[in-house]
Amino acid sequence: MACVLTLTELARLVDGDIVRGRQDDALSGMAALDVAGSQDISFLGNDKYRNQFLATRAGAVIVARGETGGPEAAGLVAVDHPSLAFSKVIRYFSAAAEKLSPGIHPRAVVDPTAVLDPQTVRIHAGAVVMAGARLGDGCEIGPNCVIGEQAVLGRHCRIMANVTVGQRCILGERVILQPGCVIGADGFGYALQDGRHVKIDQVGTVEIGDDVEIGANTTIDRARFGKTLVGEGTKIDNLVQIAHNVVIGKHCLIISLTGISGSTQLGNYVTAAGQVGIVGHVTIGDNTILTARTGVNSNVKGGQTYAGKPATPIIEQLKLEVLVRRLPKLVERVKALEKAVLQPR
Amino acid sequence: MACVLTLTELARLVDGDIVRGRQDDALSGMAALDVAGSQDISFLGNDKYRNQFLATRAGAVIVARGETGGPEAAGLVAVDHPSLAFSKVIRYFSAAAEKLSPGIHPRAVVDPTAVLDPQTVRIHAGAVVMAGARLGDGCEIGPNCVIGEQAVLGRHCRIMANVTVGQRCILGERVILQPGCVIGADGFGYALQDGRHVKIDQVGTVEIGDDVEIGANTTIDRARFGKTLVGEGTKIDNLVQIAHNVVIGKHCLIISLTGISGSTQLGNYVTAAGQVGIVGHVTIGDNTILTARTGVNSNVKGGQTYAGKPATPIIEQLKLEVLVRRLPKLVERVKALEKAVLQPR
Amino acid sequence: MACVLTLTELARLVDGDIVRGRQDDALSGMAALDVAGSQDISFLGNDKYRNQFLATRAGAVIVARGETGGPEAAGLVAVDHPSLAFSKVIRYFSAAAEKLSPGIHPRAVVDPTAVLDPQTVRIHAGAVVMAGARLGDGCEIGPNCVIGEQAVLGRHCRIMANVTVGQRCILGERVILQPGCVIGADGFGYALQDGRHVKIDQVGTVEIGDDVEIGANTTIDRARFGKTLVGEGTKIDNLVQIAHNVVIGKHCLIISLTGISGSTQLGNYVTAAGQVGIVGHVTIGDNTILTARTGVNSNVKGGQTYAGKPATPIIEQLKLEVLVRRLPKLVERVKALEKAVLQPR
Repeated sequence: MACVLTLTELARLVDGDIVRGRQDDALSGMAALDVAGSQDISFLGNDKYRNQFLATRAGAVIVARGETGGPEAAGLVAVDHPSLAFSKVIRYFSAAAEKLSPGIHPRAVVDPTAVLDPQTVRIHAGAVVMAGARLGDGCEIGPNCVIGEQAVLGRHCRIMANVTVGQRCILGERVILQPGCVIGADGFGYALQDGRHVKIDQVGTVEIGDDVEIGANTTIDRARFGKTLVGEGTKIDNLVQIAHNVVIGKHCLIISLTGISGSTQLGNYVTAAGQVGIVGHVTIGDNTILTARTGVNSNVKGGQTYAGKPATPIIEQLKLEVLVRRLPKLVERVKALEKAVLQPR
Repeated sequence: MACVLTLTELARLVDGDIVRGRQDDALSGMAALDVAGSQDISFLGNDKYRNQFLATRAGAVIVARGETGGPEAAGLVAVDHPSLAFSKVIRYFSAAAEKLSPGIHPRAVVDPTAVLDPQTVRIHAGAVVMAGARLGDGCEIGPNCVIGEQAVLGRHCRIMANVTVGQRCILGERVILQPGCVIGADGFGYALQDGRHVKIDQVGTVEIGDDVEIGANTTIDRARFGKTLVGEGTKIDNLVQIAHNVVIGKHCLIISLTGISGSTQLGNYVTAAGQVGIVGHVTIGDNTILTARTGVNSNVKGGQTYAGKPATPIIEQLKLEVLVRRLPKLVERVKALEKAVLQPR
Repeated sequence: MACVLTLTELARLVDGDIVRGRQDDALSGMAALDVAGSQDISFLGNDKYRNQFLATRAGAVIVARGETGGPEAAGLVAVDHPSLAFSKVIRYFSAAAEKLSPGIHPRAVVDPTAVLDPQTVRIHAGAVVMAGARLGDGCEIGPNCVIGEQAVLGRHCRIMANVTVGQRCILGERVILQPGCVIGADGFGYALQDGRHVKIDQVGTVEIGDDVEIGANTTIDRARFGKTLVGEGTKIDNLVQIAHNVVIGKHCLIISLTGISGSTQLGNYVTAAGQVGIVGHVTIGDNTILTARTGVNSNVKGGQTYAGKPATPIIEQLKLEVLVRRLPKLVERVKALEKAVLQPR
């Protein structure tokens, strides 16, 4: 972090415009609004932090276009996406832009029938790449990961530590798997026979599109037969459960502790906030937003925001919640009526 | 998948009866109803797919006894359990019926005091089998698993990748542990003393019965002392939490993201659907069904279906939910009454 | 367990007083109230077990001060914390007080630039300690763990099997990480740009205070920049999700399947029971208790107990739940009123 940016260089870096401040102010670090000093760059990406913005001592703040407030001493650079612009600052300052240094650690275990180019991939210590697995160029396999038999990874996948990719599962390009996630466990399928749950073989796979990211300790089950699918560009948070034969569309966001049951289909650009539950065999339309802890037990149309259990359009659900909160008053009103009507006078 | 079945052979394979179709029709693959072609076998296991069944181009469909509908071109084979019957087809077609090839990978680490027969068990690369562990004949230990000191596994257990079995835990026969699950972590027990939570030693174990299957990244804590128990034939899905000293009966089904708190006891044939929560120190009777997201905070009698929080017999709970949904109307009715009764005329 | 304690020795061991029983009674084991025999020590730590206490055949029972009941044949030793006192008994009887035997397993992989004293630390088979990591004296790194580049562990940390500690994360002293937990996965941060979710770099770290314990398969994300913090003495259960930039105070208890969203701050001595959900960017005051499945979506003041979604002071929430349960009666009352008022007479 010895490097320095002037305000002009900062504006150029983030593709923004200087709203206020001296062009040659020197900026040498980055920090949150409430702790930044006069040489730090900060950003206002969420209006919740406006009070911190109004009191900040940052040398420069990246803001959304139109913003002109804040302390006079803070230079302002206006951009379309302050948060994204700040990422460029982070990347600039982090020498952390470590490049992938290819190579297979001598303590990795790569089956001789696995297909990969040791000149471009990196395989860390303790990773196990099993028979017939194929790794695209530029893949990085973290320490103690397991890549199952005949699994196929596209180019430039980054598989973090302790990940399991099951046999025959297929990953697109630039897929990121956070530590501990499990792709391709057996689906939860049994048939009751003579009082015992008999396992139904799960011989399908999981197929994950390009640019998908999957969170730590998240689990995605393989299809009974056919494929469990996660569409291109979808991002899944930590500790999410995706059951067998689920189909998730493109560019969805699935937040932590959500569970999606077997054979359910999500369209594109669906958001499922935290702790959402969706039953099996239903369809969720494009652009649906399921707010935190929504419980879906039937098909829902796209383009709407839902809450509650069962999933209800959010305006309606919020009205119901208000009415529940007003129940004490309603009971009082009924009592008053009873007094007026039913009691002897 | 080069192999071929005639309709007659299919009926024999699944122990079913030909309802319709030519006995020597050749079937060479398997697929879901909506994508199957004229040489594919499919099945109708859930009435949700009836529309797909009515339009299918499958060569043969396995159906429940009594079913006679669907396209004329589709042969029908009637069985008791279509889904289970289809599993036999899957098994037939998958050369995937790979047999266990015993042996200890040179990159596995097996403590010299571990007890096992290298002629019958298979231990994959990176697995660590610690001092005094005992593996039954025919066990398979997946890559990068850890089998703790003095753990005991019955015969023919299949332990998938990256699993942890803690010290002294005991598994029955044919237990399947999906990737990343943790058997025998310390229970969550502390005593507040002088403002600090002091750890209560957790020196018990976990004991798991025959034919149990446990899902990916599920966690089962060891008892404080004594044993956390999972009964024979019980199946647990992914991302389930079983706390210390819990006792789960036989042939239960516990679905994803459910949490069962310490010392709670489940009877036999209990079903807990997704995201159920159960407090500690309660008893759940045999044959109880807890529907998705039920919150149990006291003992519940067996043989019933519950919903809601606190757990309520489902009919009663559904009535309450209907009444909540009708609250806007109830408020209108009270308003009308007030207008009629209380306002000056 | 060949060792024996007299009642007098037991009282001394647990720092308690003999309420009843002969001083030289010999006690040679330990067991729960309902299964203990005449030579076993048991304890009454939860009034739920009073019936078992009244019928116990234990030779001695550790009870809270003031307790004088139970069978005459059971000696009583009164202490301040029966449960904690019993832990001392467990520790006494378990030869299990195995001492750490230092050493680096030949099948562990320790980068030559890692800093540690092989005379005091123990590193198990399959563990990977990466470049620049620093381990305090007395640390134990379990089998198949991954300690990332430049991670720093304080003294006497116990890292169980299959754990991931990400690069640059910092652990205090005596931190315990249960199997499969993930410290320092990337936070879930994206910016929507031209219809695609673009990853926001997560270059911060996680910092964990002294005496923290973290449960199996729990996930704690690294900060976007800066630090995700877990304060001294806090205990986190299994399958908990802590998002990026969360700040958790000291001596909190966070129970299983709880999710805490980004940048939220918890004070000290906060309890979040099972399946709680907390939105991002809010503040939870000191000594707050969030009962099971509370859904927090705004700041909450400390020193109170909350329930429901949105989080509501528990008395108020329980009243509302009672009123919902009485809705059928309320509807009847409104019907009666309508009959009396609105119908033609």
